[in-house]
Amino acid sequence: MTSIIFLGPRGSFSEAALHELQDSQGADLVPGGSVAQALAALRRGDADRALVPIENSIEGSVATTLDGLSVGEPLVIVAEQVIPVSFTLMAPAGIGMGEIRTIGTHPHASAQCSDWVRTNLPQASVIPLTSTSAAAAALAEAGAGFEAAIAPRIAADIYGLNILADDIGDNHEAWTRFVLLARAGYLPAPSGADKTTLTLFMRADHPGALMEILTEFSVRGVNLTRIESRPTRKALGDYFFSLDCEGHVSDARVGEALAGLHRICADVRFLGSYPRHDGRQPLVREGVTDVDFRDAEQWLRSIRGDG
Amino acid sequence: MTSIIFLGPRGSFSEAALHELQDSQGADLVPGGSVAQALAALRRGDADRALVPIENSIEGSVATTLDGLSVGEPLVIVAEQVIPVSFTLMAPAGIGMGEIRTIGTHPHASAQCSDWVRTNLPQASVIPLTSTSAAAAALAEAGAGFEAAIAPRIAADIYGLNILADDIGDNHEAWTRFVLLARAGYLPAPSGADKTTLTLFMRADHPGALMEILTEFSVRGVNLTRIESRPTRKALGDYFFSLDCEGHVSDARVGEALAGLHRICADVRFLGSYPRHDGRQPLVREGVTDVDFRDAEQWLRSIRGDG
Amino acid sequence: MTSIIFLGPRGSFSEAALHELQDSQGADLVPGGSVAQALAALRRGDADRALVPIENSIEGSVATTLDGLSVGEPLVIVAEQVIPVSFTLMAPAGIGMGEIRTIGTHPHASAQCSDWVRTNLPQASVIPLTSTSAAAAALAEAGAGFEAAIAPRIAADIYGLNILADDIGDNHEAWTRFVLLARAGYLPAPSGADKTTLTLFMRADHPGALMEILTEFSVRGVNLTRIESRPTRKALGDYFFSLDCEGHVSDARVGEALAGLHRICADVRFLGSYPRHDGRQPLVREGVTDVDFRDAEQWLRSIRGDG
Amino acid sequence: MTSIIFLGPRGSFSEAALHELQDSQGADLVPGGSVAQALAALRRGDADRALVPIENSIEGSVATTLDGLSVGEPLVIVAEQVIPVSFTLMAPAGIGMGEIRTIGTHPHASAQCSDWVRTNLPQASVIPLTSTSAAAAALAEAGAGFEAAIAPRIAADIYGLNILADDIGDNHEAWTRFVLLARAGYLPAPSGADKTTLTLFMRADHPGALMEILTEFSVRGVNLTRIESRPTRKALGDYFFSLDCEGHVSDARVGEALAGLHRICADVRFLGSYPRHDGRQPLVREGVTDVDFRDAEQWLRSIRGDG
Repeated sequence: MTSIIFLGPRGSFSEAALHELQDSQGADLVPGGSVAQALAALRRGDADRALVPIENSIEGSVATTLDGLSVGEPLVIVAEQVIPVSFTLMAPAGIGMGEIRTIGTHPHASAQCSDWVRTNLPQASVIPLTSTSAAAAALAEAGAGFEAAIAPRIAADIYGLNILADDIGDNHEAWTRFVLLARAGYLPAPSGADKTTLTLFMRADHPGALMEILTEFSVRGVNLTRIESRPTRKALGDYFFSLDCEGHVSDARVGEALAGLHRICADVRFLGSYPRHDGRQPLVREGVTDVDFRDAEQWLRSIRGDG
Repeated sequence: MTSIIFLGPRGSFSEAALHELQDSQGADLVPGGSVAQALAALRRGDADRALVPIENSIEGSVATTLDGLSVGEPLVIVAEQVIPVSFTLMAPAGIGMGEIRTIGTHPHASAQCSDWVRTNLPQASVIPLTSTSAAAAALAEAGAGFEAAIAPRIAADIYGLNILADDIGDNHEAWTRFVLLARAGYLPAPSGADKTTLTLFMRADHPGALMEILTEFSVRGVNLTRIESRPTRKALGDYFFSLDCEGHVSDARVGEALAGLHRICADVRFLGSYPRHDGRQPLVREGVTDVDFRDAEQWLRSIRGDG
Repeated sequence: MTSIIFLGPRGSFSEAALHELQDSQGADLVPGGSVAQALAALRRGDADRALVPIENSIEGSVATTLDGLSVGEPLVIVAEQVIPVSFTLMAPAGIGMGEIRTIGTHPHASAQCSDWVRTNLPQASVIPLTSTSAAAAALAEAGAGFEAAIAPRIAADIYGLNILADDIGDNHEAWTRFVLLARAGYLPAPSGADKTTLTLFMRADHPGALMEILTEFSVRGVNLTRIESRPTRKALGDYFFSLDCEGHVSDARVGEALAGLHRICADVRFLGSYPRHDGRQPLVREGVTDVDFRDAEQWLRSIRGDG
Repeated sequence: MTSIIFLGPRGSFSEAALHELQDSQGADLVPGGSVAQALAALRRGDADRALVPIENSIEGSVATTLDGLSVGEPLVIVAEQVIPVSFTLMAPAGIGMGEIRTIGTHPHASAQCSDWVRTNLPQASVIPLTSTSAAAAALAEAGAGFEAAIAPRIAADIYGLNILADDIGDNHEAWTRFVLLARAGYLPAPSGADKTTLTLFMRADHPGALMEILTEFSVRGVNLTRIESRPTRKALGDYFFSLDCEGHVSDARVGEALAGLHRICADVRFLGSYPRHDGRQPLVREGVTDVDFRDAEQWLRSIRGDG
């Protein structure tokens, strides 16, 4: 049986994302204590897959995930899942809105629900915890020190809590993107609507390095969907690039672009080709389809006389 | 007297950064509850300046700052300060290492000091708080519920605590970059070693948009030092770019690049030109100095016959 | 009265082109012995304008014109005219097809009429002359040494010859482009459908020089309609570029592109902005109209605080 | 025995160039009447090679050669030769400077020797002929109608004429580049200092087409040494590009660039890879050597899982 470690504890947004993924069906789901621990367990072989958040519409990229993937034994993304960040107020049986004096939750969650709390529970104070689901878990035990938790809806089921109010976040369009990881070597088949994720380490901080990188993509009609420069852990002012592009490494245009990057970068870390969560197929311009590449290759062989 | 609101409470890394900035001398320093509150106070005119974190070597960009600057009344960066992220273990007089059973601090800080704590205080448990300085503040009062705090060194002074151990973070090269903000309209004079920060909203998500942006810089010899695509709050898949480039808006090459961006972007938000914290002067290639621009302008006037 | 020197002798294609140009009405038309002599006369002030060929659909660019404009006192193109290269067989009164044994003409013309001559005058031999119109002129005198000439139709009128056959060239789509030149300083008003001609001397033969040049145009949405690298007279392997672009130097996008070229080239020679012979208006993409430039300039002044 | 047709008649600059080429040793050298006839003879198989001029430092590209290679059965350049354009005054035995009243030569040659003739033979008139060597040939027969010829030095040997004055051209740095052609299929082995010649037909006259072409070269570190837009014979305003780049089609970087061009152009005509006449080796930047391409290809196979 496949085992998948996810960013726990039980009842986290990561677990909620995992339930949406087909790959999780029939798998053994194991909560991990942190992103770093989940990646380590996967690298050691203690799990077959790991599911961690990588990008959040409000907080931006999850730096520990991006950085954790950029060093150490190579891992690859094999699937992605985007879920809305929706907060639920939950409490043990017998506790109603009137009984709530303190609420346990993660500081980010309390920040994102502050309007609702101010309006609906003006007297309540908030106790910060290491995660939203830890708050729900604590409530299920005696002596939590607070009467209610703000946590993902899934945590109410898991910890046997009652839902007092649903979708109480201030921003109803917030979302988090999660990725399912495997050890390098596994490559999902092209789906026709794929994305490829890369980490690029530059040879030196020379002006124009970013233009060179982008040209390797654009000359072959490969579009980027995300890019960010990230400081390396080594020193101030030393950067690498983390990016997503459309297409699958088995596409001719993507493969040639990656080979081009390999030639001009100090290092290229391939972080996987996988189906896009939204199924949107890329617009492939004239001249860069697999057929165009095959025709050009054949023509080249003919003029080289080795056709 | 100038008033500066900073990300509090008192004793925070923001306050430590502020002490390093010349602009803070003789100013009235006011702690703010959050980045959003600091920006709002500045926009309302309740403060003359605001100091907030914008980038962290470990966590990456501070999304609330980037996003808070991207909407609302325009603000500009007028100075930047980078300080090492160094953690200190502190406790009230009379408490030694042997007495510590629980430590109050922010979850990020406990994560970054976990090696030291595991080795030196293996029995201690950690209580999460909304900030490191809030932990120090609580210790100064009776009934904090913990014996020690992990906080910036400056907090020990402010709250009259003893330092038990210094620089206990696992990563001794971690740093945070802070920016001093003003309402739009104030522009620091060029120092010869400046940076300019921009937010660019694209007209539509067309392939090649990023190449077009970068070309406006590169054709005028302006180097980027940071770039990231950021989802807008509106909808999934809708991005804007946040970036820093070398030079001052009053430099001819930077000004012409900004005008070029203004023409091709849906919106360009100018977030300030200000001295680099490291004083590194840009290498300006032949053909893009202010003198080169002036000569070319003069030549153009002569061939247009309006010389 | 305006005097215009053209590439003679009388009856040449240059004179035919001149008759099509509005600028020639009422002017004193003076035949010149060569392109170099026409340019020299204009530079000395012996003429107010010069009309010479610059490009031919069959022979390509007229090197003596391109090179003659690239050195010496600056001249500018103020108009262009394209005319079909159409050849006419002509002879003095009393000479019919049956009497023709030898034909005088320029070697290029005989090459371009060889099919017709082989078919219609198989026994005739061709005598090479320095120009087609010189052949017609010689026929008008006694003792030309040949019975007929292949020359532009206009030469028959001028020299009182009969037309025996019209449009006898093998290629009925051949054309020549002529330019009307003035001394630098005169600039035709923008017509809305203009072209600008330049000669660019590079600083050194570095890879990527051509890309840099083209980027100065493309980043400002200026399209090229002709480009060629030309060896300088100095040494083998030393090149300059001769090119035409769409638009008028008074257009903001063209002016800024020219200023950009001035900064990166060893020398830029402005060879004029003038109405296109075909009146085709350029497609100006969003972001590079004069209004866009003015708006961007105004915005830049506002953020620089000198608005 | 190999037969080579060259642009005649005997004693032409083409023949002089041919004598410099190793490929001509022991070959049967056949004069052709024109560039078009030489290409046609090669295409028909009446000759194994053809030698024709392609570029002249004074006149620019030889349009009939460029255009003749761009259509019809494919031919390829297999060698190039550059020779100085040096003119010699020659006459039959018994004729001295004092006897010369008329000089036979090609109009281009008389133009290029006009200073010398005006100074040294002020009374002499010039009779235009179809080529310089035709003038020398005529002198060797009775009744040429002129006493001396201006022709390449080699013509004096061939036609048994005396040399009266050598190197009489006004420009002592003029040169002509000749190319040796074969039917497509023959490819010279890489010499380490090669050039590749191409004709590119564009899909449509869209702005940016030239940038796209140049990017295919520059992204792979391939430098151009010549480029010109040429009108197609079809219609006014319809252009193709003729260009030379450094390197051999068997070089990985050149091959990939050509395949890229094949994908974006309506047609790419490969006109050969051949040793440069000057033996100058290209500077190949880091990342585009054959080894770099091989390494990248291997890495790509490994991440695709078909290594």
